[in-house]
Amino acid sequence: MFRNQYDGDATTWSPQGRLHQVEYALEAIKQGSATVGIVSSTHAVLVALKRNAEELSSYQKKLIRIDDHLGIAIAGLAPDARILSNYMKQEATSSKTLFSRPIPVRRLLNRVAEKAQLNTQEYGKRPYGVGFLVIGYDETGPHLLEFQPSGLVLEYLGTSMGSRSQSARTYLERNFNTFPTASREELILSALRALRDTLTKEQELTEDNVSISVVGKDEKYTLYDQANTKEWLEKLGERGPAAARASRTTAEEPSAPTAEAILDSADAMETE
Amino acid sequence: MFRNQYDGDATTWSPQGRLHQVEYALEAIKQGSATVGIVSSTHAVLVALKRNAEELSSYQKKLIRIDDHLGIAIAGLAPDARILSNYMKQEATSSKTLFSRPIPVRRLLNRVAEKAQLNTQEYGKRPYGVGFLVIGYDETGPHLLEFQPSGLVLEYLGTSMGSRSQSARTYLERNFNTFPTASREELILSALRALRDTLTKEQELTEDNVSISVVGKDEKYTLYDQANTKEWLEKLGERGPAAARASRTTAEEPSAPTAEAILDSADAMETE
Amino acid sequence: MFRNQYDGDATTWSPQGRLHQVEYALEAIKQGSATVGIVSSTHAVLVALKRNAEELSSYQKKLIRIDDHLGIAIAGLAPDARILSNYMKQEATSSKTLFSRPIPVRRLLNRVAEKAQLNTQEYGKRPYGVGFLVIGYDETGPHLLEFQPSGLVLEYLGTSMGSRSQSARTYLERNFNTFPTASREELILSALRALRDTLTKEQELTEDNVSISVVGKDEKYTLYDQANTKEWLEKLGERGPAAARASRTTAEEPSAPTAEAILDSADAMETE
Amino acid sequence: MFRNQYDGDATTWSPQGRLHQVEYALEAIKQGSATVGIVSSTHAVLVALKRNAEELSSYQKKLIRIDDHLGIAIAGLAPDARILSNYMKQEATSSKTLFSRPIPVRRLLNRVAEKAQLNTQEYGKRPYGVGFLVIGYDETGPHLLEFQPSGLVLEYLGTSMGSRSQSARTYLERNFNTFPTASREELILSALRALRDTLTKEQELTEDNVSISVVGKDEKYTLYDQANTKEWLEKLGERGPAAARASRTTAEEPSAPTAEAILDSADAMETE
Amino acid sequence: MFRNQYDGDATTWSPQGRLHQVEYALEAIKQGSATVGIVSSTHAVLVALKRNAEELSSYQKKLIRIDDHLGIAIAGLAPDARILSNYMKQEATSSKTLFSRPIPVRRLLNRVAEKAQLNTQEYGKRPYGVGFLVIGYDETGPHLLEFQPSGLVLEYLGTSMGSRSQSARTYLERNFNTFPTASREELILSALRALRDTLTKEQELTEDNVSISVVGKDEKYTLYDQANTKEWLEKLGERGPAAARASRTTAEEPSAPTAEAILDSADAMETE
Amino acid sequence: MFRNQYDGDATTWSPQGRLHQVEYALEAIKQGSATVGIVSSTHAVLVALKRNAEELSSYQKKLIRIDDHLGIAIAGLAPDARILSNYMKQEATSSKTLFSRPIPVRRLLNRVAEKAQLNTQEYGKRPYGVGFLVIGYDETGPHLLEFQPSGLVLEYLGTSMGSRSQSARTYLERNFNTFPTASREELILSALRALRDTLTKEQELTEDNVSISVVGKDEKYTLYDQANTKEWLEKLGERGPAAARASRTTAEEPSAPTAEAILDSADAMETE
Amino acid sequence: MFRNQYDGDATTWSPQGRLHQVEYALEAIKQGSATVGIVSSTHAVLVALKRNAEELSSYQKKLIRIDDHLGIAIAGLAPDARILSNYMKQEATSSKTLFSRPIPVRRLLNRVAEKAQLNTQEYGKRPYGVGFLVIGYDETGPHLLEFQPSGLVLEYLGTSMGSRSQSARTYLERNFNTFPTASREELILSALRALRDTLTKEQELTEDNVSISVVGKDEKYTLYDQANTKEWLEKLGERGPAAARASRTTAEEPSAPTAEAILDSADAMETE
Repeated sequence: MFRNQYDGDATTWSPQGRLHQVEYALEAIKQGSATVGIVSSTHAVLVALKRNAEELSSYQKKLIRIDDHLGIAIAGLAPDARILSNYMKQEATSSKTLFSRPIPVRRLLNRVAEKAQLNTQEYGKRPYGVGFLVIGYDETGPHLLEFQPSGLVLEYLGTSMGSRSQSARTYLERNFNTFPTASREELILSALRALRDTLTKEQELTEDNVSISVVGKDEKYTLYDQANTKEWLEKLGERGPAAARASRTTAEEPSAPTAEAILDSADAMETE
Repeated sequence: MFRNQYDGDATTWSPQGRLHQVEYALEAIKQGSATVGIVSSTHAVLVALKRNAEELSSYQKKLIRIDDHLGIAIAGLAPDARILSNYMKQEATSSKTLFSRPIPVRRLLNRVAEKAQLNTQEYGKRPYGVGFLVIGYDETGPHLLEFQPSGLVLEYLGTSMGSRSQSARTYLERNFNTFPTASREELILSALRALRDTLTKEQELTEDNVSISVVGKDEKYTLYDQANTKEWLEKLGERGPAAARASRTTAEEPSAPTAEAILDSADAMETE
Repeated sequence: MFRNQYDGDATTWSPQGRLHQVEYALEAIKQGSATVGIVSSTHAVLVALKRNAEELSSYQKKLIRIDDHLGIAIAGLAPDARILSNYMKQEATSSKTLFSRPIPVRRLLNRVAEKAQLNTQEYGKRPYGVGFLVIGYDETGPHLLEFQPSGLVLEYLGTSMGSRSQSARTYLERNFNTFPTASREELILSALRALRDTLTKEQELTEDNVSISVVGKDEKYTLYDQANTKEWLEKLGERGPAAARASRTTAEEPSAPTAEAILDSADAMETE
Repeated sequence: MFRNQYDGDATTWSPQGRLHQVEYALEAIKQGSATVGIVSSTHAVLVALKRNAEELSSYQKKLIRIDDHLGIAIAGLAPDARILSNYMKQEATSSKTLFSRPIPVRRLLNRVAEKAQLNTQEYGKRPYGVGFLVIGYDETGPHLLEFQPSGLVLEYLGTSMGSRSQSARTYLERNFNTFPTASREELILSALRALRDTLTKEQELTEDNVSISVVGKDEKYTLYDQANTKEWLEKLGERGPAAARASRTTAEEPSAPTAEAILDSADAMETE
Repeated sequence: MFRNQYDGDATTWSPQGRLHQVEYALEAIKQGSATVGIVSSTHAVLVALKRNAEELSSYQKKLIRIDDHLGIAIAGLAPDARILSNYMKQEATSSKTLFSRPIPVRRLLNRVAEKAQLNTQEYGKRPYGVGFLVIGYDETGPHLLEFQPSGLVLEYLGTSMGSRSQSARTYLERNFNTFPTASREELILSALRALRDTLTKEQELTEDNVSISVVGKDEKYTLYDQANTKEWLEKLGERGPAAARASRTTAEEPSAPTAEAILDSADAMETE
Repeated sequence: MFRNQYDGDATTWSPQGRLHQVEYALEAIKQGSATVGIVSSTHAVLVALKRNAEELSSYQKKLIRIDDHLGIAIAGLAPDARILSNYMKQEATSSKTLFSRPIPVRRLLNRVAEKAQLNTQEYGKRPYGVGFLVIGYDETGPHLLEFQPSGLVLEYLGTSMGSRSQSARTYLERNFNTFPTASREELILSALRALRDTLTKEQELTEDNVSISVVGKDEKYTLYDQANTKEWLEKLGERGPAAARASRTTAEEPSAPTAEAILDSADAMETE
Repeated sequence: MFRNQYDGDATTWSPQGRLHQVEYALEAIKQGSATVGIVSSTHAVLVALKRNAEELSSYQKKLIRIDDHLGIAIAGLAPDARILSNYMKQEATSSKTLFSRPIPVRRLLNRVAEKAQLNTQEYGKRPYGVGFLVIGYDETGPHLLEFQPSGLVLEYLGTSMGSRSQSARTYLERNFNTFPTASREELILSALRALRDTLTKEQELTEDNVSISVVGKDEKYTLYDQANTKEWLEKLGERGPAAARASRTTAEEPSAPTAEAILDSADAMETE
């Protein structure tokens, strides 16, 4: 009803010491589909809910491998995510070349956070409209971090980002005492349960819309996508994509695998 | 009735986390003439409806060859399409020179998408006013992708863009289970049927206003334009341009082929 | 009555996906004097109506030779036309030097269109206020194209631009079926008849206000101006300038040729 | 009463396709003192009315020599005139050095016009506030041209610029048929008569306020200023400055010549 | 109710000679959690209250080591703190390399203050949203300084910054006469007591939320964090984190140490 | 009462063809203290009234030597005068070095005027707030010129600038016929009389507030300041500073000379 | 009540020829604490009143040594003072290196004034918010000058700047006739008396809040600060800091010297 006079520009402070444009950018993140991360003393896990823009479009990639020891989940504007994830890949590669070892997780996060901070302090740019959950494993063990476009980096035992993520956080807070000592499998299933809590009544977890990634002690970044998620959904007691889709239209199932095979090669964030 | 206070600039977030100028640019795409794309496990097809600004002007080129393995359909501002399609041609050429193989389809799309994203994050530019449907064939098989000026890239089994494209999408969703295993001919005819569904009562598909392109396994980018579309329109059961035009003015038919021959050399996007 | 909020800047999209500043620039073109172009299978012809700012000023040049195989008619701001036509001459010369052959017509048009498009996408510039009709002859035969400051390039069998050009377009649409096979002379006379249709009751075509240019198979760019237009006006059945002017002031005729001879050397767009 | 919304910036089009800031700059020219130019088949002449800011200030220089074959009359802001006339002198000198011949008149005009056009198309500059009448003699004979800050260049048989110039133009239009064959003397006297028609009842032409310049076949740029204008004013039947001033204050006449001699060395546009 | 007309820009003076944007940036500092600093004639001490964004997130690092002889406490925007603290580390390192001795405390402060001042005097940037308390030991002894984003640097015997810091300042002012001669232990305990005065009724000092750093004569920068703060809290008579947390949820305590161990490696400001 | 819409920017034309910001800058000049200049056929003279900001501040320097043959009087902002007078000194020096002769007076004026004109045509600068009266002697004799921040340069027999200068101009217009043949002494006294006419009832000319400079045939730039003006004031019949000040406070006179001696070394515009 | 339309920008003239932003910057100076300067024929003296932001903060340094022969007192924004005083130190050093003699006082002032003037003439910067009183001794003797952020430099026999400085100026005007011949001691005491006149009823001069600097014939820049001011305060009849503070809290005196010793090393403007 009343125009805020200080929210047109990322370089303008409000009288209350706030940067409204930076806060508005966070709204774009809240509208992304949900993603959940948990860390134990040996592993870190990300699970995410994928969306497709239309019935015939591929599901948007939510989990991106940055390096053997590090991956991210994105929430917000996919084009902004591409810019920043590519930057992270380049930094990881260049660090490996220079120092002959994987880049420490937090160091990489600080790099991308510095880049993002610049867009909150120079006129004529806008804050990025994307946030990341990051899992990684380095000399200090497994990590789960959150990156925000303000340049903020936070470390978590477990957290969730995106649409309806509060429900997942509630699950995590109730169960977090089991995470540090949880096995790899327990960790993945806990993450999926938290993710399941973000669903609406009409939704369910399926091979189509779930992605899972793990990194840990003696385990490089591993992605479970499409059919590969089946084993986890079964352990969770969820139906696979065939069953899910069957509830909509039974006739199309026979050819779906082939169609899926085509889409399976999609890599929304590929670069060299 | 009420001025939106956050829509004057591509670098300003609305309090809801939206970039209105980017959304407005999409409106320019919706006003373009319709185009339809479908992909099978072996081929990818684009068909498009061409318009002419005046009765005596040539029909605007809608399908553009980027490389032997890749072509696009455009919807939106033709001058913006020229800039971006030329950029894609240069990238394709330079990649072939450097790596001695065709550029992977999604990699090229990511390149042009990064270029487009910049215009949504730097003050003093505007988002491009054009979208693409892209077909291509590379080591991972045939692909159908959509490029949006926000920098978004989506993969599809089948989709449509431009004016009245919802009707085409409805057709595609009803029939998509036949696409993965469809033959090259079936694929083209399905695409034409979907395109036909976007026509108004006064319109029909003719040799003048239809363009068809195919790429696939063992088939380089092939374009059917003007007279060459005749075989496909006949298979579809549509009348050719002579018949179509005859309904307007019968006297001009004899000389039309010659006139068409002149226009046929038009190449709205030629570059070197 | 109501200020459009999105029309102050060429880099701002309206909510309807329009660029108002680009559209406003087209208004400058509509106020230029009329010009008409027609193409046959062998020749392309431009005719134009010249204006003089005052009774004693020379008539503004409307037809400009770019190269032996290519010429343009301008409508809109003459200073903007100078910038762009000089650019075209430079491109034509440089292409001839580099490739030892005349620049293909559409390629040159795309070059100038890319230059014009930039002014619709960078803050702090304005779209050019001039449009061109272009005739040219290259390896693909004769061409008639239209250039708009948006960067749009269209090909035509026949068209008209500038003040009251709708009347000329109506003539062209009624007679276009005769153009492809028309002789050089028939083509010129058709163009002049179309141009004549744009005149007000008080105006007539005279040696002073008509310019004619032709290019074609085995014919380099040829310009008929001033006295040289006499033969064409007589074939058309129009009076020459002496007669025309006589209706205003009879005494001045004897010395007019000399006066004209002075002005005849005027070349509004000369460059080196 | 109502703010025009499109006139704050030279790079903004009005919905009617006008550039208001460019038009406003022309108003500065209309407020300059009058100048008249005429061209015959052998000579070109400029005459101008000089003003002095105060009784004791020198009269502002109105006619400026650019080169042996070319001179200008200015109307509008003198500082802007200095910038542009210096630019013209530099271009003339550099052309003579490069090509060993005087720069063609229109070519030089096009150069300065291109410079002026830039200020109508780049944000952060303003259109120049000065116009020129230009006389010159080159291989194509004598010329009279007008330069406007929009970048427009027009050729004339005779014209006038500045305050109350319409009266001079009326004189010229009534007598223009005599100009082409007029002798050098007749041409100068015609120009002075036209200039005299721009005077108010209180004004008269005097040695103080008149300047005359001629260029032509076998005649380099010649300037008549101060006492040198006496012969022409006498032929015209005008009184000289002594008589003119006498009507105001008789006592000062004896010493005036000396005073004038001091001022005579003034060269408002001198550069090296 | 009434818009201040001079507060939109850090480079605009108000009629009262104030820079409102600089003042607004200070508000961001006031919202940071509290930190307290005291200096004796031999040591300088910083203590700070850490916050965590969520129950499962790590506590935000408040004390940062810059060099062996120098550390800071931050209040305000963490991403801005990262930029400036990294700058300080670089300056400290580069000074040590060049001059083979630690950089004097105030000199380093002046460097970062000059950097911050620039953002208050150049359009298009914003003042940093972070303040520092700084402790250091150099040739002139121990120091406690405050850095503000205006570029102001102040020296103190004791002070406090951040939320509810007025209560701490009151404590310090009442007890400051004991500081100069206080022992290292007394100094730390005084600082903790001042910090405790900033707590709300619901808060208490715990191993989780307290950080302590000391630097002094013969003592390099020393940090007490997490479990290491236990001895100090006990001396102060405060409960440790287990007890603190127990008041919320008793069940989680057993696994908490492990979870903490993971988070312990977090270093919000690490760079190389 | 009514905001002028076209006066916020030196690069915006008003609909009447005016540059309001340039006109506003002239107001700063009108508020400067008065200065008077006269030229004879052998000499040029400047006299000026100095002000002091407070009773104990030195009088602001009004007359500045640029070179042996050239000096200026300033009216308006002293800091702007410093920039421009330093520029003139540099140009004078560099010209002398290059061409081994003093720079012609008008040439130097044109240089500084071109510099000033730029600030009226580029966005983001402001017109200078200072004007000059200039005296000089070169190959064409003695000169008196006026420089305005618009870039205008005018030549005068005699003129005045600054506060209440109209009274001086009236004196000059009544007596100008005696100037050309006046002796050096008569010229100085005439200038002082004109300056005296600008005084208010409370003011009188004193050694403190008068400065006199002369340049001419066989006379390099000569400055009479402080005590040196005494002879001229006596010839004029004015009281010296002692008498003048005595009317305010008699006690301070004895020590005043010493105080003055200190201030006498002040050189408000010194540069190297 | 009524927005001034011309005060948002240092590069905008008001219709009255004023630069409001420059005037607003002076307000920041008026809010600084008072400083007083006096010059005799042999010495120049500055005295200043220091403030502390809080009870436990050090007093802000007001007097800064620039070189052996030159020092300043600051009033206004301390961070702006740091930038400009560092600039002056660099200029002084570099001049000494180049010319092997101390930089003349006024020359250095003109340098910093030129730097400050730029910020009043380029868009996107702001005028500095600090003024200086300057004392120096060079070949022309002792000097007292004032620097304002407009770029104005004034010379004085005696003056005062900052809060309530009018009272000091009144003292100086009443006694200035004694200054030129005053001894060094008399000069310092006169300055202190003038400073004392600026105090409110609650204030008094103490060792804590007074600083004194002197420069003169055969005397390098000398600073009296803290305990060193005691002798002067006693001569003036003022109480020292112990007494002053005792009125607030008697208990703290014994340890105060130590505390002060710590703060004494503070050098708010130190640079290398």
